[in-house]
Amino acid sequence: IFHVTWDAQAAEKGGYEHFMIKEIHEQPKAIKDTMTSRIMSDSDEIVLDDIKLTKEDLDNINKVFIVACGTAYHAGMVGKYVIEKLARIPVEVDIASEFRYRNPIMDEKTLLIVVSQSGETADTLAALREAKKAGARVMAVTNVVGSSVAREADDVFYTWAGPEIAVASTKAYTTQLIAMYILALYLGRLNGKLSVEEFRTIRDEMLVLPEKVEKLIQNKEELQKFADKNHMHRDMFYIGRGLDGSVSLEGALKLKEISYIHAEAYPAGELKHGPIALIDQDIPVIALATQEELFEKMVSNIKEVVTRGAKVISFALEGNTDIEQVSDQVVYMPRTISILTPILSVIPLQLLSYYVAVIRGCDVDKPKNLAKSVTVE
Amino acid sequence: IFHVTWDAQAAEKGGYEHFMIKEIHEQPKAIKDTMTSRIMSDSDEIVLDDIKLTKEDLDNINKVFIVACGTAYHAGMVGKYVIEKLARIPVEVDIASEFRYRNPIMDEKTLLIVVSQSGETADTLAALREAKKAGARVMAVTNVVGSSVAREADDVFYTWAGPEIAVASTKAYTTQLIAMYILALYLGRLNGKLSVEEFRTIRDEMLVLPEKVEKLIQNKEELQKFADKNHMHRDMFYIGRGLDGSVSLEGALKLKEISYIHAEAYPAGELKHGPIALIDQDIPVIALATQEELFEKMVSNIKEVVTRGAKVISFALEGNTDIEQVSDQVVYMPRTISILTPILSVIPLQLLSYYVAVIRGCDVDKPKNLAKSVTVE
Repeated sequence: IFHVTWDAQAAEKGGYEHFMIKEIHEQPKAIKDTMTSRIMSDSDEIVLDDIKLTKEDLDNINKVFIVACGTAYHAGMVGKYVIEKLARIPVEVDIASEFRYRNPIMDEKTLLIVVSQSGETADTLAALREAKKAGARVMAVTNVVGSSVAREADDVFYTWAGPEIAVASTKAYTTQLIAMYILALYLGRLNGKLSVEEFRTIRDEMLVLPEKVEKLIQNKEELQKFADKNHMHRDMFYIGRGLDGSVSLEGALKLKEISYIHAEAYPAGELKHGPIALIDQDIPVIALATQEELFEKMVSNIKEVVTRGAKVISFALEGNTDIEQVSDQVVYMPRTISILTPILSVIPLQLLSYYVAVIRGCDVDKPKNLAKSVTVE
Repeated sequence: IFHVTWDAQAAEKGGYEHFMIKEIHEQPKAIKDTMTSRIMSDSDEIVLDDIKLTKEDLDNINKVFIVACGTAYHAGMVGKYVIEKLARIPVEVDIASEFRYRNPIMDEKTLLIVVSQSGETADTLAALREAKKAGARVMAVTNVVGSSVAREADDVFYTWAGPEIAVASTKAYTTQLIAMYILALYLGRLNGKLSVEEFRTIRDEMLVLPEKVEKLIQNKEELQKFADKNHMHRDMFYIGRGLDGSVSLEGALKLKEISYIHAEAYPAGELKHGPIALIDQDIPVIALATQEELFEKMVSNIKEVVTRGAKVISFALEGNTDIEQVSDQVVYMPRTISILTPILSVIPLQLLSYYVAVIRGCDVDKPKNLAKSVTVE
């Protein structure tokens, strides 16, 4: 058995009321640390020390699986989107407890990426072993050096989030997202599907994300205002399209975990196929509208729920003020390219969950019934 | 414009209080009609008149997409499972309003299957057109002869459910499931991945499904009992693993649509990664445990929610009485092979939604805010 010992000093709350809010504030640094020495402003190459996958290996791969649980699964959903977009390799993202029992189609042409903060998640580790048995190449994205998934995988990508103590994951998630972007850039450059020009655009935007995240964390008042007004609701809906849909799922999970509100995320275009039946003034709707090319469609979807009486808080990029006409409250975010918005949009959703849980008097860092790492099946 | 006219006679309620309960009762016949002349007890071949896909065509296909909305999307999830299992072709199932905007990886080696009861669903039709533009072969599964998707697809599979009037789909869903099984058998035999022996086992079991469905429909008392006890709850959870997970999603959607209860489905293995935090005595849990190889794992998952105070109604195969120890109520179903259970397990879930909606005084056939076919984006 390999024991991982955290520095006791690092585990202190450092003046914050809860570990969760401390860890939310640590995100600019965590994101920066996860990029350091891997993406550099003056280099057209991604440097990944623990990844030995060669161009030849990659040319032999025709399918990527990303397998994870909970929050890490939501990071994987973003990973699917960006790897398909930048490297044009088909990616399937799956929940570990489902994947391992469904006899997935895998062979030596498969690359399986597991994502686990602790690196000890039981179902994820079991999925990794299934994949190795089938001859697949396995890559681990984890926050713990020397963890089981790190030791058993062929390639490892460490997120440098530092120890995460709060049960509800925040900085582990955002650094997992950074891992997904870096891997997508790496694979896209390796197989030649991503041009140097596009690479540079994304690289340059990534390098300024830490300061944008910092700015978002400072803007607490609007989320506290939302919490003051809406903390008594029993149900909420999160809606979004494309990448916003994946972040909606993470936002809803965060609220479920620490405030015990029944929050559910739905792809906005699916509302008309059922869920809109139950929307009324008692179910606040959290709407993400950060994708420029889907902005008009989201405004229409928001109108649909407003017509049914819902109170809406929207999240949009600075300048997209049209959204105010269909929203009770709008939280604006610094502009970035569409593909990178998840890193920004999840921040106010974390804060929203935090303030709602605090005002409801919940035990934010240790929600009932949950463990930090699920090391049993 | 092509007009579809239903026989006015066929649209009458025929003694039933609502179209929905009438259509639930029509399922044995609808399932039988959808199998007739396609699967025959004395034949090892599947006969599909409107499908021209040859063995050569299929050998050229390396990826299947199933694209749909709402209930049809849930049928597609089962389709993914069975096509991958019987024909060993990788299948990705996607929501039409997401698929069409995410630049999916498609080419002339792709088979895209759209599923739409009306054949006029706007997002689904748009996805079909995107796929054709990319050179993919397109197959339509629809209930309406001459509908837009039927006219524009290369191959068509008609479900013979007859006119469906209630907004909440029941017999269209079960016949879409039958379509998925028949297509999976067809593809598996065509590419040789499915042995004659396995084909015969599934064929013979399918042919006796109508009488098993009939038996399930007669067993209303237990579901009325559940409705009597639980109709006042605002939130419910549906849990299951594997195929049961897909049926859980359909069950939850049905309850959302017609009773306005906030029902959410979750893969049972994911509960520990967040949602279990909000489980308590006010959130009844509907547990599906029909998959023999996952039965013990489901019993453990049910124990987890019972420990948190949840009242549980479970659905299991006859004889699996161990589940009574962890359930407040158990509904048993006739035994069949694991792969076919969705056809049976959805029936009591339809009835459960129906009786809950009736006792809540909801307008069952015309839920607020919903249209039968979503022909706008």
